[in-house]
Amino acid sequence: MRIGIVAPSCRIDEDVVQRVAALAEGRAELAWHPQCLLSDGHFAGPDAVRAEALIAYANDPAIDAIWFARGGYGACRIVAQVIDALRPIAREKTYLGYSDPGTLLGALYARGIGRVAHGPMPADVRRAGGEAAVSRALDWLVDGSTTALEPSLGEVPAAAFNIVILAHLIGTRHLPDLSGHVLMIEEVAEYLYRTDRDLAQIIQHPSIRGVAGIRMGRISQVPGNDPDFGAEPEAVVRHWCARAGIPFLGAADIGHDAGNKIVPFGPSSSGA
Amino acid sequence: MRIGIVAPSCRIDEDVVQRVAALAEGRAELAWHPQCLLSDGHFAGPDAVRAEALIAYANDPAIDAIWFARGGYGACRIVAQVIDALRPIAREKTYLGYSDPGTLLGALYARGIGRVAHGPMPADVRRAGGEAAVSRALDWLVDGSTTALEPSLGEVPAAAFNIVILAHLIGTRHLPDLSGHVLMIEEVAEYLYRTDRDLAQIIQHPSIRGVAGIRMGRISQVPGNDPDFGAEPEAVVRHWCARAGIPFLGAADIGHDAGNKIVPFGPSSSGA
Repeated sequence: MRIGIVAPSCRIDEDVVQRVAALAEGRAELAWHPQCLLSDGHFAGPDAVRAEALIAYANDPAIDAIWFARGGYGACRIVAQVIDALRPIAREKTYLGYSDPGTLLGALYARGIGRVAHGPMPADVRRAGGEAAVSRALDWLVDGSTTALEPSLGEVPAAAFNIVILAHLIGTRHLPDLSGHVLMIEEVAEYLYRTDRDLAQIIQHPSIRGVAGIRMGRISQVPGNDPDFGAEPEAVVRHWCARAGIPFLGAADIGHDAGNKIVPFGPSSSGA
Repeated sequence: MRIGIVAPSCRIDEDVVQRVAALAEGRAELAWHPQCLLSDGHFAGPDAVRAEALIAYANDPAIDAIWFARGGYGACRIVAQVIDALRPIAREKTYLGYSDPGTLLGALYARGIGRVAHGPMPADVRRAGGEAAVSRALDWLVDGSTTALEPSLGEVPAAAFNIVILAHLIGTRHLPDLSGHVLMIEEVAEYLYRTDRDLAQIIQHPSIRGVAGIRMGRISQVPGNDPDFGAEPEAVVRHWCARAGIPFLGAADIGHDAGNKIVPFGPSSSGA
């Protein structure tokens, strides 16, 4: 299996390449696009270069899966160019990532392009215990391992997003129709008042109001609010679910951490 | 003139009441709703109490204008309840504020309720030179002073928003149709990558794509980006204007500071 790695947001360092290559040795061929190591201010190269790298790999028949290297910020600057340039061969591939590249996952899923999944990325190897996250991603990409999957997945179609990324898809043409889906959400390092504000925007949208329910992944590294926000993260999620009449379904085993499980979008508990 | 003051977001302290009352002495009667001083976690009282305070004043025939006391966060939690409870008398009033209460300004303007304006609030009295900002608001509210107005205002209708607040109106029923308007935007204390992300969402929306142009207010207190973002605030605004084919019209004299001028929404360079 040939896995193409591109960085639509921020760059990675050479050590990520080395450590992930070691984990993939003998399991899959990793094609690291040199764009992953570029630097242009905040981004892993200029918009056009990041877009062209992703387009080239997505349209390359010799690549079986696209693995987003890292999050950060930048996918929303290239999503329109990328989506409009994909050829039919791009529909045959798997796309894996989370956090900022969730913008691309949403846009791909909105058009039924490829098998889209929320899960660990190469840069996660730097986390404490991060090798397990990367190995889990390979287990799913290479072997279709079901043990890599978020455990609540079942018959109902699912999708997963970082909360602030989903909020920024609202009102754009890249938001997929999530009606009937179990929507899993997670967040990291955001003030709770911001997550509350994001959820206010998210749950007002008709497509979101039609979800089968919401599961809460980890909302981690929340900075202290001054004054105290007055509610815990779960109470915030439950508040907005209740206001929108959306069932709160409990926890999802996803988040910005090494435990992050894989959520294929759609009715797909069957692995890659 | 009787000006009703409510706090849809965060609370104010007693010193704001005293200092603003002194500035208004002999000019206007200020009706401070006691809700302004309440505290409930992050907010100036629970959602229902904040909503009821605003509804009561907006529906009170003895109140001529509603002045939002302060920003922070919280208006989006009450906007639906407020809008749906306003009676015809609420349409006769002026509404003044900015920052987080911009959510309410947008929702009011979307329904043609009242004379809506972006400008200083009582809590601005605490800023360096803040008495000038509060006096400017009174000049406009009480005397309809045109010197209080943002100087570029003219024949073309205008509107003004904090960027992150406008981004969170996208895709909701509270976003007004801004086609044909000069849209003025300002921001404070946000990482530039976040402002970039907000603008990406904002300029994709059809209503925003139809604006007559965008003017950039102050984008101030931007925290340092690591790595350097690679562009200055004006380049970021120009980038998104160019991508959307929206004319960039230059600077607007608004911002989270004592110099913040007043921008009545709509075709209204005629003051209050």
